[in-house]
Amino acid sequence: MNMDLTEAPIGVFDSGVGGLTVAREIMRNLPAEHIVYFGDTARLPYGSKSRDTILMFSRQIIRFLQTQHVKAIVVACNTASAFALDEVAGENNLPMIGVVKPGARVAAQVTSNKRIGVIGTEGTTGSHIYRNYIQDIDPEITVIEKPCPLLVPLVEERWIHDSVTRQVLERYLAGLQEQQVDTLVLGCTHYPLLRSIVGEIMGSAVTLVNPAYETALELKQLLAARNLTNPGTDKKEFPYRFFVSDLADKFKVFANSILPYDVEMTQKIDIENY
Amino acid sequence: MNMDLTEAPIGVFDSGVGGLTVAREIMRNLPAEHIVYFGDTARLPYGSKSRDTILMFSRQIIRFLQTQHVKAIVVACNTASAFALDEVAGENNLPMIGVVKPGARVAAQVTSNKRIGVIGTEGTTGSHIYRNYIQDIDPEITVIEKPCPLLVPLVEERWIHDSVTRQVLERYLAGLQEQQVDTLVLGCTHYPLLRSIVGEIMGSAVTLVNPAYETALELKQLLAARNLTNPGTDKKEFPYRFFVSDLADKFKVFANSILPYDVEMTQKIDIENY
Repeated sequence: MNMDLTEAPIGVFDSGVGGLTVAREIMRNLPAEHIVYFGDTARLPYGSKSRDTILMFSRQIIRFLQTQHVKAIVVACNTASAFALDEVAGENNLPMIGVVKPGARVAAQVTSNKRIGVIGTEGTTGSHIYRNYIQDIDPEITVIEKPCPLLVPLVEERWIHDSVTRQVLERYLAGLQEQQVDTLVLGCTHYPLLRSIVGEIMGSAVTLVNPAYETALELKQLLAARNLTNPGTDKKEFPYRFFVSDLADKFKVFANSILPYDVEMTQKIDIENY
Repeated sequence: MNMDLTEAPIGVFDSGVGGLTVAREIMRNLPAEHIVYFGDTARLPYGSKSRDTILMFSRQIIRFLQTQHVKAIVVACNTASAFALDEVAGENNLPMIGVVKPGARVAAQVTSNKRIGVIGTEGTTGSHIYRNYIQDIDPEITVIEKPCPLLVPLVEERWIHDSVTRQVLERYLAGLQEQQVDTLVLGCTHYPLLRSIVGEIMGSAVTLVNPAYETALELKQLLAARNLTNPGTDKKEFPYRFFVSDLADKFKVFANSILPYDVEMTQKIDIENY
């Protein structure tokens, strides 16, 4: 067992703050692990951009994370998981997982009526990646994908428990209710922050799947299988480090509002140089 | 008079589709001029990014527009006008104007009670560029700036004549109504598309200033003063050319919905190479 590697951090990246919901689940479920987080705040959002662009951005970020000596990478962004993960995973020796497969797998397991809804950005839903993964597992499942481009800006405006956000969600979710889905995948890392209002609208008969949580569990299994689990219980002074491509202070404010501890420092780097 | 130069196109750029409202006013008010438009769709939005990042992006775009032999450049983006125009104008010999100064000048002229509201992105309002320009003209004018980050995504979702958009606007504009502004600057290039609903909420006693229109008029004066006005009435086969950094087809659909003629072609270029 390579002690250096087990004590190395997990690299987690997203287009901005959304991936913090994934980092939060890793902190909760793998408390011995260190994290290096990168948010591409200069170039967000990813959801409205093309495959080639997202692939180029992802490669730059992975090169940056490698300079931080990470032992594994979590692509904590649905769009990058959809557009870039398979390709960049083949280009590197690092273990890499995205948020889409874990969410898709659990959704396929929990549906009873074989009707699953997926909400996400235009990039994620337009790529049909959730539908493809779910139907790889069970081709008889019907998957209805609904792009919801206003939800990220509403969360970033902090209108989370809000009548406008409820109306926007009611409009976006109406078609999925008519289609009688019994399972709904929160297919964007911002959406767990809207979980309670989505649950109220969909009703208790619909199971909500949070890919952030499922990804943390899959990461735990992956680290164990590769003998990469951090055995330590002692944390370094800064177990969680945060890097962004722009507006570090704004990121820190948002991070402090959703993480269960104080983010001391966020550093801006020039990602286009990687 | 240099015939080559007078027949050269005007370069117009924005972070995405918003600057098309400026291009539209140039088409209406300077019908003899050709236009090369660039929308930085790979890196939008600009409104939530920092000065340094916007400056770097603007320099790349200006280098691209110079390869298209433009005779003048219109920075059709409030954030780039606020953060980058003065600096990049000093680095080039090309005549350059932004959308902020023309809008600020007219607002200062039309206010009676010396209370002006400005709505825009976080970048534009946080830079206080409208307040600074307006108070340079008349220090006794009170300028109230209100960031409205949800309006661009609402316009891009095409929820333009919509009850949700009305509620969002009512919430954003309430403070400006309480402050009794008699003039309101539509300080983001997307906002002219919301002009009628903003006018209904603010009432007929409030004058709306559209910087896109004022910029076209100022461009006309600038070209005349420099002997750069295109004397021709004959148009080339493609008088208006459109370039983007991503998702050319999506851009074309939006462009066709707001421009008064058919956009035949939009070309994707790799802006980070400039």
